[in-house]
Amino acid sequence: MNGWIWFPGDFEIYHMMKQNFSREERGFDWPAYWYASGWNHKIEFSRIYELAEQTTFTAYVRGKGYIAVKRRLPDGSKQVKKYPFGQQVTCAPGKVEIEAVVAHLEGLPSVLVQGRVIASDESWLASNHLEHELPAGVSELFTRPEQDPAVFPYAHELKEPIAIEQVNGGRLLDFGYDVTAATLLTFNAEFKAVTLCYGESRTEALDVEDCYLRQNIRSSDDHGLERIGELTFATRLRAFRYIFLPGIEDDSVVVTADRQFVDFGGVSEFQSSDERLNEIWAVADRTFRACSDIFFLDGIKRDKWVWSGDAYQSYFINPYTFFNKEIVERTIVGLRGGEPFRQHLNTIVDYSLYWLISLEDYYNTFGDLRFLETVYAKMESLLDYCCRQIDERGFIYGRPGDWIYIDWAEFDKLGPLCAEQMLLARAYESVIVVRGALGKPAFDLEEKLAELKTNIERFYWDEELGGYIDSYESGSRNVTRHANIFAVLFGYAEGERVETIKRRVLLNPDIPAIHTPYFKFWELEVMAKIGEYAYVIEQIKSYWGGMLDQGATTFWEYYDPSETGPEKYAMYGDKYGKSLCHAWGASPIYLIGRYLLGVRPTAPGYASFEVAPRTELPGELTCTLPVGAGSVTIERLRERLTVTASAARGVLRLSDRVVELPPGQAVSVTLSGSYQS
Amino acid sequence: MNGWIWFPGDFEIYHMMKQNFSREERGFDWPAYWYASGWNHKIEFSRIYELAEQTTFTAYVRGKGYIAVKRRLPDGSKQVKKYPFGQQVTCAPGKVEIEAVVAHLEGLPSVLVQGRVIASDESWLASNHLEHELPAGVSELFTRPEQDPAVFPYAHELKEPIAIEQVNGGRLLDFGYDVTAATLLTFNAEFKAVTLCYGESRTEALDVEDCYLRQNIRSSDDHGLERIGELTFATRLRAFRYIFLPGIEDDSVVVTADRQFVDFGGVSEFQSSDERLNEIWAVADRTFRACSDIFFLDGIKRDKWVWSGDAYQSYFINPYTFFNKEIVERTIVGLRGGEPFRQHLNTIVDYSLYWLISLEDYYNTFGDLRFLETVYAKMESLLDYCCRQIDERGFIYGRPGDWIYIDWAEFDKLGPLCAEQMLLARAYESVIVVRGALGKPAFDLEEKLAELKTNIERFYWDEELGGYIDSYESGSRNVTRHANIFAVLFGYAEGERVETIKRRVLLNPDIPAIHTPYFKFWELEVMAKIGEYAYVIEQIKSYWGGMLDQGATTFWEYYDPSETGPEKYAMYGDKYGKSLCHAWGASPIYLIGRYLLGVRPTAPGYASFEVAPRTELPGELTCTLPVGAGSVTIERLRERLTVTASAARGVLRLSDRVVELPPGQAVSVTLSGSYQS
Repeated sequence: MNGWIWFPGDFEIYHMMKQNFSREERGFDWPAYWYASGWNHKIEFSRIYELAEQTTFTAYVRGKGYIAVKRRLPDGSKQVKKYPFGQQVTCAPGKVEIEAVVAHLEGLPSVLVQGRVIASDESWLASNHLEHELPAGVSELFTRPEQDPAVFPYAHELKEPIAIEQVNGGRLLDFGYDVTAATLLTFNAEFKAVTLCYGESRTEALDVEDCYLRQNIRSSDDHGLERIGELTFATRLRAFRYIFLPGIEDDSVVVTADRQFVDFGGVSEFQSSDERLNEIWAVADRTFRACSDIFFLDGIKRDKWVWSGDAYQSYFINPYTFFNKEIVERTIVGLRGGEPFRQHLNTIVDYSLYWLISLEDYYNTFGDLRFLETVYAKMESLLDYCCRQIDERGFIYGRPGDWIYIDWAEFDKLGPLCAEQMLLARAYESVIVVRGALGKPAFDLEEKLAELKTNIERFYWDEELGGYIDSYESGSRNVTRHANIFAVLFGYAEGERVETIKRRVLLNPDIPAIHTPYFKFWELEVMAKIGEYAYVIEQIKSYWGGMLDQGATTFWEYYDPSETGPEKYAMYGDKYGKSLCHAWGASPIYLIGRYLLGVRPTAPGYASFEVAPRTELPGELTCTLPVGAGSVTIERLRERLTVTASAARGVLRLSDRVVELPPGQAVSVTLSGSYQS
Repeated sequence: MNGWIWFPGDFEIYHMMKQNFSREERGFDWPAYWYASGWNHKIEFSRIYELAEQTTFTAYVRGKGYIAVKRRLPDGSKQVKKYPFGQQVTCAPGKVEIEAVVAHLEGLPSVLVQGRVIASDESWLASNHLEHELPAGVSELFTRPEQDPAVFPYAHELKEPIAIEQVNGGRLLDFGYDVTAATLLTFNAEFKAVTLCYGESRTEALDVEDCYLRQNIRSSDDHGLERIGELTFATRLRAFRYIFLPGIEDDSVVVTADRQFVDFGGVSEFQSSDERLNEIWAVADRTFRACSDIFFLDGIKRDKWVWSGDAYQSYFINPYTFFNKEIVERTIVGLRGGEPFRQHLNTIVDYSLYWLISLEDYYNTFGDLRFLETVYAKMESLLDYCCRQIDERGFIYGRPGDWIYIDWAEFDKLGPLCAEQMLLARAYESVIVVRGALGKPAFDLEEKLAELKTNIERFYWDEELGGYIDSYESGSRNVTRHANIFAVLFGYAEGERVETIKRRVLLNPDIPAIHTPYFKFWELEVMAKIGEYAYVIEQIKSYWGGMLDQGATTFWEYYDPSETGPEKYAMYGDKYGKSLCHAWGASPIYLIGRYLLGVRPTAPGYASFEVAPRTELPGELTCTLPVGAGSVTIERLRERLTVTASAARGVLRLSDRVVELPPGQAVSVTLSGSYQS
């Protein structure tokens, strides 16, 4: 694909830095508190062509430098002709090397070469003078000369408020649901001072003193205000559902939201006889799309940082919504940053391990070996970094400055933590899969993995307690759910032990409950995995349904049903610290899609796939989910199930039979009696 | 000193990247062809204060972020208050930590905190989230809120041409000597298309087709033209002495040079009864100042890159001209770049070794241990990088991508090169000195050095040939001057061996002559060192005088007296590729100052110094040179020598006596008979 090219990874690193620097809180900026991996400022791009005839091309640049046409002359000497960018270059026939040399002090060095034969694409090689001959980075989003890869081509939509309310001596605008938008102010007669109080909730917007985001506009040339028309001004981007304008009681200023988003399209749809479930799906879909930007963000109002743990959960939701490959690649590459690897992702050891695991998940979902090739070296160097903090038992520990997180929960953190070792084992498995897919040996890791699993059993499994303990150094033998959830989820506990863990830990009210939707994700997945489908549906309807009852139009970072007053908006010691539009709030999509509709790839990239709907689903149902590049529609009318897949090599798996799904052809079966799991 | 602060080293890295990206050639930009080390984009600055009373401060930022005031409350809890930049903050008494958090995507993250008590300076600590608690970078050039450390406060001077000539159907403007300047065009009546043909020589400027720098201005809104007045426009910076305007035969456009420079001031002066020598000194001084920018540049027209080898020579000239400490520090720090060290300086192994040696030279010249502390870790990591490419004999070899340069000369480069090992030994010695100055042990290096010197003797010294051979692997036992010059210069050859080398190599016409002024620097220094003062003066007068005879008003990159036609401007296969204003062309200042006037420090930072003038100097002489922060004036009237130093602890050393120089007091001696060296 002919388009702009850059040093591989740098597009993502540049935009991730921009994203992680975009947080705002109460009048100040709050850049992310970890090392910001930098991009390269000087790149040489090149490609060799065998030209059958004379040809021309024009090269465009972001940055500065030159184009060189190099060829070997008949006398053996080397000829180098240099040209400025932006002018047409004519090349005589023969073997030539085209080189584009670009430097950019402030931005992303990038080049677009356009010609019938000579044209920039992923077959061009890039060098930063340390790493050589890497395939250049490209994106189908950047193909035109007037573009700059440092400026992402967002979609925009102007939104009017759906309701305007006169209250507290001002105007409250309700835009219906959370959006990331610039606020456009159009004054009817003349500029006037105005204060914008934003809120994800009505309560927050009306709290003029304490709302998280507020802008006092005093003059038309205020810093932070851009004039875009004679009497129209735009603010910076913010996320909000409500805006309150204290003191404004007329139409002297009209407020519009210039919503900015990435339009992912996608076929996913869920309609059933259970209205509550339909609404949960729709709100989860809206939430997930709102948090899916250049990268998977945690939420849209507060951090807007790219957290590896949050992103990891988004990788699971994505295949059941818009099935976008590029956002996953961008997030994986951006999170990883440049070489050398010098700090765990977001400073969190678990988050580095999730990154490794995400490569296997990427492979299963998209099956793209070319992408794995491009991140392979960075995978190995991250793994190597982790392996340098492993003790004689094979356990990973935290070094000064490392954060051993797992979850917001009370763990016994003296010595290596069990849950962290489960993730390490899972990360080894993933690297083994990726190496295998790329035809590289993994004997060393297989040995490490075997030793690690043995030692996990030996040091953490407590037969008496019927569960894995947090850690062993203190001797307190504390049991929490986390390591046990991982053990079942990753298949490290099998057979009878799963039953033990279920009974002694997962369904044991004496073991502290999971509090965060982040870990509730894994907990519910485990419940689905062990066949507790009715429990999962009940949880989805009560927990996420509870948010709807509280007026949610997007799903929250955290929800405690016992909090019904304004305290429900508080978090991290901040009155409005809770994010009310948070990616991980969208997990019902994954739980329903993966476990209740039972859609999953059975070979990398959905080369083959399976649909295994559960009878616990509502009695009437029409839904469509992606399966790779195609889609599958599942319709249920009580005992009648009809499945139509547009992609090849799918099967419908029921408890008593497996039916092939010929592409484009509806397959109907009767469910009666067939759903005793 | 209260001023802007940044992550240590980043100011230099940022500006060096800008400098190394500034080269222009025939209509295109030519960024330097090595890895461009990046600066940090996210920094946390902090300082703890014990406040006796309430105090206020205001912080300014380049980038974005916030100020936090942290204190421990009586109940043991931690209080954190955050403020935007740009507003006054009031702090209650007690112990507080002030933190400034700054991110900058495109520029240099930096902060200025101004208050009576709370004020940013080098006592603040900086973290990039990988390296912590480093003393912040500062410069006395950046102290005002409206400044941006990414914009260097250059001095400017408007220069009119000293001569205007109607020739070849156009106008030739002569500005007298090479300057780095924006070209200002003021049109008398209206804008008109004009072509600017630049030249360091008259020949080049008149060569409309082939001059190195040319700008065709077609329209008043041309890219590369800035409108600065109604009919006045400015071009980008270029270096030139001449501008030719083809087709312009009237006053319709007035051309002025807006010269940009760093004003280093300085006391150095040389006047003598030898007019030729005076002129050489003055032209060398002009040349050196023109090439001394934020960093020591090679030359001003062509590369404008910061080359470690060229800079190393400038470190020697600097103490005899303007004695500026900051430019040396900036150049050392900028060249070294960020961590980790991943490529030799300018890709050249010798240039990394010169960098190590330059630290000892810095210490001798300026004696500033604080600066050595700030570069210590980077010195060790560069040394470590070098030590990873050393063979079992202790010899350094080139790895793929490394350039073993030494000089433009024909060496036998099979296997490790002798001259490179001489530099390695010298680099070890320098690191030993720096470690010693900082109170750190160096036993490991002393051992390595001893082994290396033994093996240099064993493998490279050829008794029969009376010199050091280039290399030993080929068996060709080729002798060039370079390693032999180093052996004498560094004191590795002593006593009788110096005589042997002098006779068999240095004065042997069968050994290929040194061709570059770069290495001629060391060759002449060796001749001075072995007492050939008359030869050195003769060389200065003939070689540099020869350039004056060719019309030079600044000294050249290279001069071959046999070239008297336009071919004298050619180099690197380019008709005008030779730089006619090149820093190393200024070496007569060092040779005269260090060896003929004999001024040198005898303790680090000129804590004590020596003046040892030679009778080979002209019979009448008045000159002033810096000695640390002070100066020394040397006057000669035939046999009468009067020396006045403003600094303490100086001595006048003559061949037959040593006389103390009480500060501010003239000391006169009679030279008669006392100068038999």
